[in-house]
Amino acid sequence: MEDQISRGLEGVAVAETRLSYIDGAAGELVIGGFPVEELAPNATYEESVFLLLYDRLPDAEELAPNATYEESVFLLLHDRLPDADELDAFRADLAARRGVGDKVRHVLRQAAEEDKPAMDALRMGVAAANLGHDDGGDADPEAHARRAIAVLPTIVATYWRYRQGKDPVEPREDLRHAANYLYMLTGEEPGDAAVRGLETYLNSVVDHGLNASTFSARVVVSTESDLVSAATAAVGTLKGPLHGGAPGPALEMLREVHESGDPEGYVREKLDAGERLMGFGHRVYRTRDPRAGVLEAAAERFYGADGDTDFFGTVRSFEDIAVNLLAEHKPGRTLETNVEFYTAVLLDGVDIPKELFTTTFAISRVGGWMAHALEQREDNRLIRPVSRYVGDTGRSWTPAEER
Amino acid sequence: MEDQISRGLEGVAVAETRLSYIDGAAGELVIGGFPVEELAPNATYEESVFLLLYDRLPDAEELAPNATYEESVFLLLHDRLPDADELDAFRADLAARRGVGDKVRHVLRQAAEEDKPAMDALRMGVAAANLGHDDGGDADPEAHARRAIAVLPTIVATYWRYRQGKDPVEPREDLRHAANYLYMLTGEEPGDAAVRGLETYLNSVVDHGLNASTFSARVVVSTESDLVSAATAAVGTLKGPLHGGAPGPALEMLREVHESGDPEGYVREKLDAGERLMGFGHRVYRTRDPRAGVLEAAAERFYGADGDTDFFGTVRSFEDIAVNLLAEHKPGRTLETNVEFYTAVLLDGVDIPKELFTTTFAISRVGGWMAHALEQREDNRLIRPVSRYVGDTGRSWTPAEER
Repeated sequence: MEDQISRGLEGVAVAETRLSYIDGAAGELVIGGFPVEELAPNATYEESVFLLLYDRLPDAEELAPNATYEESVFLLLHDRLPDADELDAFRADLAARRGVGDKVRHVLRQAAEEDKPAMDALRMGVAAANLGHDDGGDADPEAHARRAIAVLPTIVATYWRYRQGKDPVEPREDLRHAANYLYMLTGEEPGDAAVRGLETYLNSVVDHGLNASTFSARVVVSTESDLVSAATAAVGTLKGPLHGGAPGPALEMLREVHESGDPEGYVREKLDAGERLMGFGHRVYRTRDPRAGVLEAAAERFYGADGDTDFFGTVRSFEDIAVNLLAEHKPGRTLETNVEFYTAVLLDGVDIPKELFTTTFAISRVGGWMAHALEQREDNRLIRPVSRYVGDTGRSWTPAEER
Repeated sequence: MEDQISRGLEGVAVAETRLSYIDGAAGELVIGGFPVEELAPNATYEESVFLLLYDRLPDAEELAPNATYEESVFLLLHDRLPDADELDAFRADLAARRGVGDKVRHVLRQAAEEDKPAMDALRMGVAAANLGHDDGGDADPEAHARRAIAVLPTIVATYWRYRQGKDPVEPREDLRHAANYLYMLTGEEPGDAAVRGLETYLNSVVDHGLNASTFSARVVVSTESDLVSAATAAVGTLKGPLHGGAPGPALEMLREVHESGDPEGYVREKLDAGERLMGFGHRVYRTRDPRAGVLEAAAERFYGADGDTDFFGTVRSFEDIAVNLLAEHKPGRTLETNVEFYTAVLLDGVDIPKELFTTTFAISRVGGWMAHALEQREDNRLIRPVSRYVGDTGRSWTPAEER
């Protein structure tokens, strides 16, 4: 084994999981047993997380359409609805979990004032997520998971408000996860179309096999470290442009295309100049990313109800042109539409600022990270590969004066 | 490949490195071309880091014994001594890099007041390490590396001072890395024996192949994320008891043994009760860990000059007894002395509180983490293994009311 180097660990299986399955050749993605096309447009984000944690959907009573956010989260974690007393206690507990304390808020404010990227601010906030929370500490990994899932939107929105020179908006307990995130960004209650659009996005990207950030979360807990450390490592990993960083540039490209009024000319110019088109190609998929279809349908619904249909029209014709010309220009490679393409379109539609695209990805994926971390803990083995040494051996020491 | 699962990635080579080489069967460790026995007792920590970064030792002029800390660090990073102007500028720059701002200090204070573990405080501090530092951001990975290496001791000492109900001690620029760390913990200038003991420890554990924390740092930068994110992930990984967490318990055990006055009786009692002895056995080494010998010699020197020789005597006889009885009780397994055993003895000798053993490990290993992260960037490939899916596929959606 040691003679061969697998620099990217391609095809090396490190874990069994029941959380998600990717068939890159066929272009299929299954999350918690559901094809992504089936799950994402229908589920609430709370249902998706429930599914990842408990391997089944909640029943009607468990997830009544009028359930409060607290009830839904209680369900996610305890697999049943709380009674009245439990709900009171849980509501108080969750309200405390969703908030960020003054000291962390000041750090986020400084990050905003120094124009640090949103993912840096999120890393700082998540690293401190167990401050002010006497939740049993490392001995209660589910409390850490709950806290991480609950607090990510608050950290991102707090940073963003400061970045706009505004005061943070306190989370509202009567709003569901997706709606509350949008509310904290603007201070205004979002419309149904925007909530549904965002919710479909959150469901679509909640888990995706052993991607690099999920893998880093599993490496962290493989040492028996805690889930907050795992979430922090995963945020840092997701930050890289090779993983979570491309939807922002994809949006900028689509805006340029739209302004040019000439998608085909734009594509030809880029390809002739040897430049890359954003939003095409994926390490795993050899087909169109199945999430692209789900997000395309969600975007179509959203833009039809509440958006700039002109822009959406440009996007669609650009996609066709780009895929065809890419096939012509790079015949050996499969460059189909990936998840970032319609992520950019959909998140822009629901008014997520492009600076927050990667953090919004994290707000979804933290559900998968935490479920994977709990799965790793259930049947753990320290993850420790090896390296091949290519340096000298047997040097001997001489004092500095004699070198 | 996908049919086999390698849950711990044992023997799977993920990278080439010139930084360190481990022969677990022979019990050999080479760091930057030097056997650890050759490097650790001789080098300063600055020399070790220089070696990792530039693959050679600095010459006499580059690392004059009277060099200031700033000159040494300049050398580490630029491979030559600064001229007078550069030194002025660099001194101002480094002084800024080593400090932690008010806002981060307040977070560390809160962590101390809430009795969060030192590694949690370190994670929070490192996650915010680029606050207040306009260092070119992610575009300048070496600046991030420098900052991380410089600031870890300050974060740990600041937390610890708060934990003692005392004010933090500002770093002193005229002291070298190891001496300054001890100084910030107590406010008193440390003796030479303690500095040499700590320095040997820092050199011994500065790098150790693709251990889990170093691997997680490489996974993070493999997405083209930044070095502060890599250091933060590595801290979270090192926190786990399977990786960095055992020297504290090893010390507690040694204190118990010493108080019992009967090492053999203690070992027999533990083994008969089926309990584990701390400080023996390693995933990679099938022999005595070569670092144990280096740290034993350093501890012997330190305790001879400045320590409790009674306690050190107990430690040595306990080691012999334990290794022999372990071989008797668990004949199939190789349970030799590992690095944690003499780490506990040496760090306790130089007055590092046992709550800070793992953070002191991090203060050393960050040199290796950053060197590996830079090595990964030089010839990068996204690290993304796969998982084997063991759940259902093809479930179809039913609304909550109909479940």
